[in-house]
Amino acid sequence: MDKCVLILAGGKGKRMKSDLPKVLHKVCGKEMLNHVIDVMRKSDFESINIIIGKGADQVKIATKEKNVTYSFQSEQLGTGHAVMCAKEFLKDKDGIVAIFAGDAPLISEDTVKKFIKFHEQGGYKATLLTSILEHPDGYGRIIRNSQDGVERIVEHKDCSADELKVKEVNAAMYCFDIKILLNGLEKIKNDNAQKEYYLTDMIEILRKAGEKIGAMAIDFEETLGVNSRVQLSEVERIMRNRINKKHMENGVTIIDPNCTYIGEDVQIEKDTIVYPGNVIEGNSIIKEGCILYPNSRIVSSIISENVTIQSSVILESKIGSNTTVGPFAYIRPETSIGSHARIGDFVEIKKSKIGNNTKVSHLTYIGDAEVGKNCNFGCGTVVVNYDGKEKHKTIIGDNSFIGCNTNLVSPVEVEDNTYIAAGSTITEKVPEGSLAIARSRQVNKKDWVSKNNLKK
Amino acid sequence: MDKCVLILAGGKGKRMKSDLPKVLHKVCGKEMLNHVIDVMRKSDFESINIIIGKGADQVKIATKEKNVTYSFQSEQLGTGHAVMCAKEFLKDKDGIVAIFAGDAPLISEDTVKKFIKFHEQGGYKATLLTSILEHPDGYGRIIRNSQDGVERIVEHKDCSADELKVKEVNAAMYCFDIKILLNGLEKIKNDNAQKEYYLTDMIEILRKAGEKIGAMAIDFEETLGVNSRVQLSEVERIMRNRINKKHMENGVTIIDPNCTYIGEDVQIEKDTIVYPGNVIEGNSIIKEGCILYPNSRIVSSIISENVTIQSSVILESKIGSNTTVGPFAYIRPETSIGSHARIGDFVEIKKSKIGNNTKVSHLTYIGDAEVGKNCNFGCGTVVVNYDGKEKHKTIIGDNSFIGCNTNLVSPVEVEDNTYIAAGSTITEKVPEGSLAIARSRQVNKKDWVSKNNLKK
Amino acid sequence: MDKCVLILAGGKGKRMKSDLPKVLHKVCGKEMLNHVIDVMRKSDFESINIIIGKGADQVKIATKEKNVTYSFQSEQLGTGHAVMCAKEFLKDKDGIVAIFAGDAPLISEDTVKKFIKFHEQGGYKATLLTSILEHPDGYGRIIRNSQDGVERIVEHKDCSADELKVKEVNAAMYCFDIKILLNGLEKIKNDNAQKEYYLTDMIEILRKAGEKIGAMAIDFEETLGVNSRVQLSEVERIMRNRINKKHMENGVTIIDPNCTYIGEDVQIEKDTIVYPGNVIEGNSIIKEGCILYPNSRIVSSIISENVTIQSSVILESKIGSNTTVGPFAYIRPETSIGSHARIGDFVEIKKSKIGNNTKVSHLTYIGDAEVGKNCNFGCGTVVVNYDGKEKHKTIIGDNSFIGCNTNLVSPVEVEDNTYIAAGSTITEKVPEGSLAIARSRQVNKKDWVSKNNLKK
Repeated sequence: MDKCVLILAGGKGKRMKSDLPKVLHKVCGKEMLNHVIDVMRKSDFESINIIIGKGADQVKIATKEKNVTYSFQSEQLGTGHAVMCAKEFLKDKDGIVAIFAGDAPLISEDTVKKFIKFHEQGGYKATLLTSILEHPDGYGRIIRNSQDGVERIVEHKDCSADELKVKEVNAAMYCFDIKILLNGLEKIKNDNAQKEYYLTDMIEILRKAGEKIGAMAIDFEETLGVNSRVQLSEVERIMRNRINKKHMENGVTIIDPNCTYIGEDVQIEKDTIVYPGNVIEGNSIIKEGCILYPNSRIVSSIISENVTIQSSVILESKIGSNTTVGPFAYIRPETSIGSHARIGDFVEIKKSKIGNNTKVSHLTYIGDAEVGKNCNFGCGTVVVNYDGKEKHKTIIGDNSFIGCNTNLVSPVEVEDNTYIAAGSTITEKVPEGSLAIARSRQVNKKDWVSKNNLKK
Repeated sequence: MDKCVLILAGGKGKRMKSDLPKVLHKVCGKEMLNHVIDVMRKSDFESINIIIGKGADQVKIATKEKNVTYSFQSEQLGTGHAVMCAKEFLKDKDGIVAIFAGDAPLISEDTVKKFIKFHEQGGYKATLLTSILEHPDGYGRIIRNSQDGVERIVEHKDCSADELKVKEVNAAMYCFDIKILLNGLEKIKNDNAQKEYYLTDMIEILRKAGEKIGAMAIDFEETLGVNSRVQLSEVERIMRNRINKKHMENGVTIIDPNCTYIGEDVQIEKDTIVYPGNVIEGNSIIKEGCILYPNSRIVSSIISENVTIQSSVILESKIGSNTTVGPFAYIRPETSIGSHARIGDFVEIKKSKIGNNTKVSHLTYIGDAEVGKNCNFGCGTVVVNYDGKEKHKTIIGDNSFIGCNTNLVSPVEVEDNTYIAAGSTITEKVPEGSLAIARSRQVNKKDWVSKNNLKK
Repeated sequence: MDKCVLILAGGKGKRMKSDLPKVLHKVCGKEMLNHVIDVMRKSDFESINIIIGKGADQVKIATKEKNVTYSFQSEQLGTGHAVMCAKEFLKDKDGIVAIFAGDAPLISEDTVKKFIKFHEQGGYKATLLTSILEHPDGYGRIIRNSQDGVERIVEHKDCSADELKVKEVNAAMYCFDIKILLNGLEKIKNDNAQKEYYLTDMIEILRKAGEKIGAMAIDFEETLGVNSRVQLSEVERIMRNRINKKHMENGVTIIDPNCTYIGEDVQIEKDTIVYPGNVIEGNSIIKEGCILYPNSRIVSSIISENVTIQSSVILESKIGSNTTVGPFAYIRPETSIGSHARIGDFVEIKKSKIGNNTKVSHLTYIGDAEVGKNCNFGCGTVVVNYDGKEKHKTIIGDNSFIGCNTNLVSPVEVEDNTYIAAGSTITEKVPEGSLAIARSRQVNKKDWVSKNNLKK
């Protein structure tokens, strides 16, 4: 039996006022559509088909690593039409197809799994997700029949006085028997004011055919769709709270969950403390016992145990255990810092490997370098990795002491156990055990200040 | 017909516990009084008169570019007395005068315009702004008469049982026929416990004279006055939400509208993404497609299309399109950065012009300089613009490559197509096409580390 | 008469999922237990005894400056058992003992004082703190007798239909006559499902003995205990709001009190403005008229009048009046900055004294130094305080001008009224009135760029 899912992602999203297709707007750092795809993947569907339309190419690029297929909806003629566009995808399948919306990213794996089970165990040919609302105004009402199945869906404007009192509303998320869906689609008509094909018409079609239709009510929050940037920010807030609550329950201290921004795919271990204003994105992993002081941005990085980070930006890098970073450090992609190291204030590390116990305390740039362990970088050190044409590599051995305001002109090698005097520009290899020096002697010109009338 | 407005701004604001006059406390980056003045200006009043008292000189300075006049209230003897102080301003006018409060900055242009129209079209001699409150305790109640006009205002403490049930309350914002107001002011008495002259007494005076008095109810939020710092923070929150909603509706993504601080006069174009913790003040303009990563402060600057800014401070400057700034850059006033440029981490630019495609990637200071296009500044470069007495200018041509840890001692000129070797201090002109170098040769002292017992 | 307090701090806190004892988790920068201890100290108890169990050594270390005593509870056998463990502490005392929880840090000094007064003036032998809840489900109900004393406490699960309607619930905070408590403790039994000794059983024991028992209802918020990280964040939010409200009432402008993080022991004077994202911890004192722009972290520092701080980290230091710090400065412990000084962007000051009017504007490191007044540090200056083995001291006199990208190799002295040329490495004393210079002359190599095919 096949088990597949369609995700509707072709809508225009006019109210977003954006050049970007609506489903590619991000919530907690990930495109809405990718949120929905990831949930469906975890919910064990065999195949995922995306109905694309507006910005189809952009949508394909944004989802290219997700192992999904695409159906193309050239015109926006309603949800029923969108599903018709997936006929090719469905035609040889036999089993169930779920239909979700690419702009409703709060649906959870747990709910989807329950929904499919509900559909299967109830012996339904079609099942709807619904919500119970205190104020259902404007929503299509679910009219149930005496067998506790669904009789029909009535749009708000078409409701009778009794129907208006119904508080169960349609969430526009469905599960169908594939064969029955394909048959029914033939019968949907667009004889309405908008000239659109509505998927909700399927319910009446199936009821007329005597099929059993189910409905499962879930938390309204999970059904929220995004049609504007205001709604985008509301959905972001709900997902943020959900993510932060999960981490707190796992033993992470989040000082202010309202002001802490953690992506859905981030992992954080217990006894890590996250101050407000941190933004943690991508597939970052923060291990046990870290302290993230306020206002860092960490993207797709691995932070080992007991690391302290303060007001820094760390991109696609690895920080070893018991190391401190910042305040005000910038770790750029493909960097790996050892354990018990210190990357201090106003330090940039770019695409480099830094050994254990090495200190790069302040005002230093290291780029395209391999640095050994137990080194000490004086303040103001610059690895001169770019000569105006190309980038070159620098190798620095263990136990090196690099004096302050030193230039290491790449390509260059500094061997183990070396010293470089402050203020030197190093252009040649520094052999093991040597002191390298390249600077002028100091001259004091007496009474220069008064002679030049500079005395304050 | 004259159309003018009085803004009451003479109050003491004792509960603010401040040396600053109350109306000069800021909401969303602008003084409360200037918010009210700006709204009145947009509402097409011909002349705006401010009643000043406490801190009159400070108020004049803070509003000096607003083209307003001032009346002075030497003693705080009530709202009626405040208006009496504006007699000189009103005496030769004929038409209408609106009266608003300098400490109630949430009043909107839309409401003020509707209010004036309501007053004019209703043929009223006086009109009040009011609100409907579920819990009106403590507020003066609006007692309407059968003709749907206002009969009188009754203070909470003077209300009968029936009057206490009235939910319409006085917002202390008014519109009067000028001649009628001036006449009526003569009749206001201070025969009350506080020995104050109340403007609300005008209503009874006018009713006794048979005049028609109107009342227009508006959202209570717009009438909120600020008497304490707690109320200041509440009004700030309301205005913040209002501003952020406006931008989201215009197509700006604001990831967390509760933690994004945008001044009322800031413009932002669509498809710009604003991360939390940003503070954007003054007359800043952020064009289309920018990304503002968290925690920058941008004041009165122009940010062109597709600019990326991260954790930086930008003051009164202009950033060209497709340029990146930060993380941790500081752009000081009167700077202009070209397009496709990079101002990287730990870089300060002060009062300089930087050409297109120029890279200032890290740990660099450029001050009082004109820099051409396609230049590359090595890490640690310093424009030495100050000699201890004066600031001097530096000129750097196109296609220049400035080596790392270089000093450019101003005044100095670096011509087009030049190279400066890392670690040089440049004190003389670098002619076109030259390499300039000013450093000592490297010497390696063998076995120095072991001889000095420094081996780890 | 003795007046002492027991604080229960031995619980496991399993739901915290932490290696740290529950009571040591911090709220607004201070351990929950230390919050409770500080409140008790201010409430004039003569002696404070902590019942410790899990993580006893850690608890002792965290409270070692609090002048408290400890009782050890080796097993967790209920609140009654916890109090039994303090018998040694109580046995020679005569008077009253209050009992509070180390994981309920919102209790206030004002409430504790009222509680003790209530107990004493009511002539009670035992008194409970209680709260009135709209939804009391799950809580033990307070059953009062006709004399307005307490008859008994009934656990939710044991309540009759009438008792379920009672809205007064037990807050698990008590005051007892010491002698009566010690007697009663002998009678508490553990004949229940959990085999625990409940302190609430004391109420029935005392009632049977005919003693008078009181109950004082307080705001539920003050009684909140922390059992999980989610609750920790909720308690943090409540305390944060309470602290920020206090400062606003004192005349401090807090632009967004939801996003401003001020420790309970911080003092701030009036007319200081605090932007969002600031974290102020420890015993910091911020004097009048300061502006704290967004996103600084200030720990146990003294900030004098009219200081401006922007996006900086300041630890255990003192900043003089009218000085500006940042953006992006890092002031490390044991630093003292004078007045009218400037510590600018990308500047680190470590364990140094900086005189009045001295400017350290950008990209500079000063460590282990004494700097006079009216000095100017050029950009890129480094005090080379570490030679790879030891830290040394640098002394810089008044009116010194330190050129850009200069190294001051410690130990070294720069006397008054001196100049150091940009790009110099200074290794010897600079005598008063001298210019020191240590650099190579500039050489321009003509046509080098074209000869090397580097022309763009």
